[in-house]
Amino acid sequence: MHFKILKKNIHNNARTGQISTLHGMINTPVFMPVGTQATVKTIAPCELKDIGVEIVLANTYYLLLRPGDKLIRRAGGLHRFMSWDRPVLTDSGGYQVFSLSSSRKIKEEGVEFRSHIDGNSCFLSPEEAIKVQNNLGADIIMAFDECSPYPCEYNEAKQSMERTLRWAKRCKERFTKETDSLLNHKSSLFGIVQGGVYNDLRKQSIQETINIGFDGYALGGLSVGEPKNLMYEVLNYTLPFLPEEKPRYLMGIGSPEDLWDCVELGIDMFDCVMPTKNARNGQLFTTFGKVNIKNAQYKDDFSPLDPECNCYTCRNFTKAYLSHLFRVGEILALRLNTLHNLYFMIKLMTKIRKAIEEDNFEAAKREFLGKYERSTSKVNS
Amino acid sequence: MHFKILKKNIHNNARTGQISTLHGMINTPVFMPVGTQATVKTIAPCELKDIGVEIVLANTYYLLLRPGDKLIRRAGGLHRFMSWDRPVLTDSGGYQVFSLSSSRKIKEEGVEFRSHIDGNSCFLSPEEAIKVQNNLGADIIMAFDECSPYPCEYNEAKQSMERTLRWAKRCKERFTKETDSLLNHKSSLFGIVQGGVYNDLRKQSIQETINIGFDGYALGGLSVGEPKNLMYEVLNYTLPFLPEEKPRYLMGIGSPEDLWDCVELGIDMFDCVMPTKNARNGQLFTTFGKVNIKNAQYKDDFSPLDPECNCYTCRNFTKAYLSHLFRVGEILALRLNTLHNLYFMIKLMTKIRKAIEEDNFEAAKREFLGKYERSTSKVNS
Repeated sequence: MHFKILKKNIHNNARTGQISTLHGMINTPVFMPVGTQATVKTIAPCELKDIGVEIVLANTYYLLLRPGDKLIRRAGGLHRFMSWDRPVLTDSGGYQVFSLSSSRKIKEEGVEFRSHIDGNSCFLSPEEAIKVQNNLGADIIMAFDECSPYPCEYNEAKQSMERTLRWAKRCKERFTKETDSLLNHKSSLFGIVQGGVYNDLRKQSIQETINIGFDGYALGGLSVGEPKNLMYEVLNYTLPFLPEEKPRYLMGIGSPEDLWDCVELGIDMFDCVMPTKNARNGQLFTTFGKVNIKNAQYKDDFSPLDPECNCYTCRNFTKAYLSHLFRVGEILALRLNTLHNLYFMIKLMTKIRKAIEEDNFEAAKREFLGKYERSTSKVNS
Repeated sequence: MHFKILKKNIHNNARTGQISTLHGMINTPVFMPVGTQATVKTIAPCELKDIGVEIVLANTYYLLLRPGDKLIRRAGGLHRFMSWDRPVLTDSGGYQVFSLSSSRKIKEEGVEFRSHIDGNSCFLSPEEAIKVQNNLGADIIMAFDECSPYPCEYNEAKQSMERTLRWAKRCKERFTKETDSLLNHKSSLFGIVQGGVYNDLRKQSIQETINIGFDGYALGGLSVGEPKNLMYEVLNYTLPFLPEEKPRYLMGIGSPEDLWDCVELGIDMFDCVMPTKNARNGQLFTTFGKVNIKNAQYKDDFSPLDPECNCYTCRNFTKAYLSHLFRVGEILALRLNTLHNLYFMIKLMTKIRKAIEEDNFEAAKREFLGKYERSTSKVNS
C-alpha cells in the first residue's frame, strides 16, 4: 500500500490523496460502504462499481462465524468469494465481540466469547485476528483493539487503551511474520487509537501507536453514544498528533454533515452502516434534505426522489412508486433505496474532493449544507 | 395487437409466432415472469431487459388493493409507474378474488369480497375488471372469469363455466365501449375458457367464447391441484378446438418439463410464479436438474451453479457463495437466485423456439430432458 497526498487545503486540514493497493486505487477522502457478511446489503458488486465505490468494508466477526475464514481462504479470499475485484478493508472483529457477543471474558491473551448466532464458544486474540483477516485476504486489515463504551470511567478507558497498545504490538509482530506467505499478496495493517473522551489518554495512545508503526491510523471508540460536541472536542485535540503522511480513518462515521466536518479536520477514510441501514428503513438522503419515503405525502408524488440525483432510482422511478414498493414490502424497495443512498454518499465524497482540489471547500460546504439542512429542518418541523 | 405465426412444426402442434403490441414485439412461445405488485420480486426492470424478458404479467387484484388502479392511471399507467417499456399483461383479478379474499359473495352482477390485507369491502364485476385493467394500461388484458377449483362437481363446474361465458360477453361489451379513450392506446382482450376437467364443458366453453370473439384465448382452471395426467387429458382434448390464428395462453404453467409438453400441444403463452418463488426458497433450475442451494453439500462447492449458464449469477459467483448468502439471510441471495431462474426460463423458451424453427423439436426436447431429468432424479434419490 502506498499513500500519496495530492492537495492540502490552505485554510483547514482537509486534503485529498490516493491509496494504491494491489486491487486498485482509492481516492481519499473516501466513504467505504459496509459489506458485513461479504455483501453490501441488497446490492450486487456490479452495481457498487457502477456507482463508483472504490473500497468496501467487511466484518471479521460475522465472517469468522459464518461461513468461516478458512472457507473464504479456500474460495480464494474475499475478493473472489464475493466477486469484488476492488480493495477491501476488514475490521478486526473487536468491535462486534464487545457489542454483540454474550458472556465474553477479556484476558490479556485475548477474548473468549459466545457467538450471538448459536452460542458457540469462540476466541479472538491479536494473533488470531491477524490470522483470520489474512485468511479473508483484505487489502487493509485492522489491529485487534478493545473499544471503550460511552460513558466510561477514566481508569477503565485507561486500561482498555493500554491493553489496546499491548495488543497492537502483538498484532504488528504477527502481521510482520506471516503476511507475506498468504494469498500471494501483502495487505496493510492499520493501528487503532483508543482512550475514550480523555485527551491525555488519546495523546498517549496515538504516540505509542505511532511508535509501533502502522500503515495508517484509525480513531476508534468514537460515535459510540457520546454527544456530538464531545466527539468533535476529541477529534480537534487528537488529530494534530497523527502523522501527516499516513491515512487517517475515523471508524463508524458518518452522516453527510459529519463527513464535511471531519474531512475539514483532516480525516481521509470513513465507514458507516447508516446509508444502507437507513435506506432499508425508508430514510433517504437527498440534495434537499432527508426524505422518509413512508410518509403519506409521497403516496401520489410522481416526481423523482431527488431531482438533482442521477442514480438509477432517481432516473427511473417516482416517489409514488418507491412509496408503493415500501408499503407492500417488496425487496426492490430496499434495493432502490440503498442504491440511491450509496450513490448519494459516493457523489458527496466526489464533491468534497473536488472542492478541496479547487480550493473551494468552505463555499462548497456552505452550499451543500444550505440546501441539505434548510430543507431537513423544514421537513422535520 | 397483431399475431403472426412464423413456423409450424410438422410432427406436432408446436409453433412459433410474434405478437406485436404498441410496446414492442413478443416472440412466442413465451414465458411471462409474474410481477404481482408492479415488480417482478427482487428484480429491477433493467435486469429483466438484460436477460431478454419481452413481457411481464401483473396482478389486477393486488394492484387494485394497493396502490389502487386510479393512482396507477394518474402515474401514467403501469409501464411508466414501474419503468417498464415493454409489453404488460394483466389478469382480471378473478383468480385471486376466489383464492385469496375472504367472505366473497358471487352474484350474477359480480363478486363482493373482502381484501385479504385489511378486510375492506371490495367489488369486482366484468365491467369493473375491464375498467380497472384499462386504468392499469396493460397491453393485453383478461376477461373476468370464475375459476373452478379442483375437485369440482360437474354441476358446479357447469355453472361456473356458464357464468364465465355471460361475464365474457359483458367484458367484451365494456371493452369495446371504453378502451379507445383510455391512456391513448388500445389494449387487447383475451377470453378465458373454463369447464373444469369435463370435456363437454370445455368444448362448450371454447365454442361460445370464440363466438363472442377475442384477441386471444386462455385456458383457465388448470394446474389448480388436479393430477398432471388429467391436465394433459383436458389439454389434448381441448386444444384442437381453439382457432389456429389466435394466441393460446395456458395460465399458471409451468415447470421446464411442462413447457416442452405444452408447447408441443400448441400453447403460445405461459406464466408461472414458480421460477421466482422457488428461487426465493433456494430451489434453482440448472441444465443438470434442480439444485436446492440449502443443501449442506454446497457450503464448500466452489463451482458455478450451472456451468452451462451465462447469467450474471453463474458468471460471477460459486455455489459456496450462494449457499453462504442464503444461510445468513442476505437479500442478495434472493436476487441472484431469482435472476438465475428467470434467465433459465427465458433461455429455455429461446431454445424451444429455435428447435421449432429448425424442425428439431423432438430431438431438442429429448436432449434437454435427458440432462435435466436424469440428474434431477439422481439428486432426489
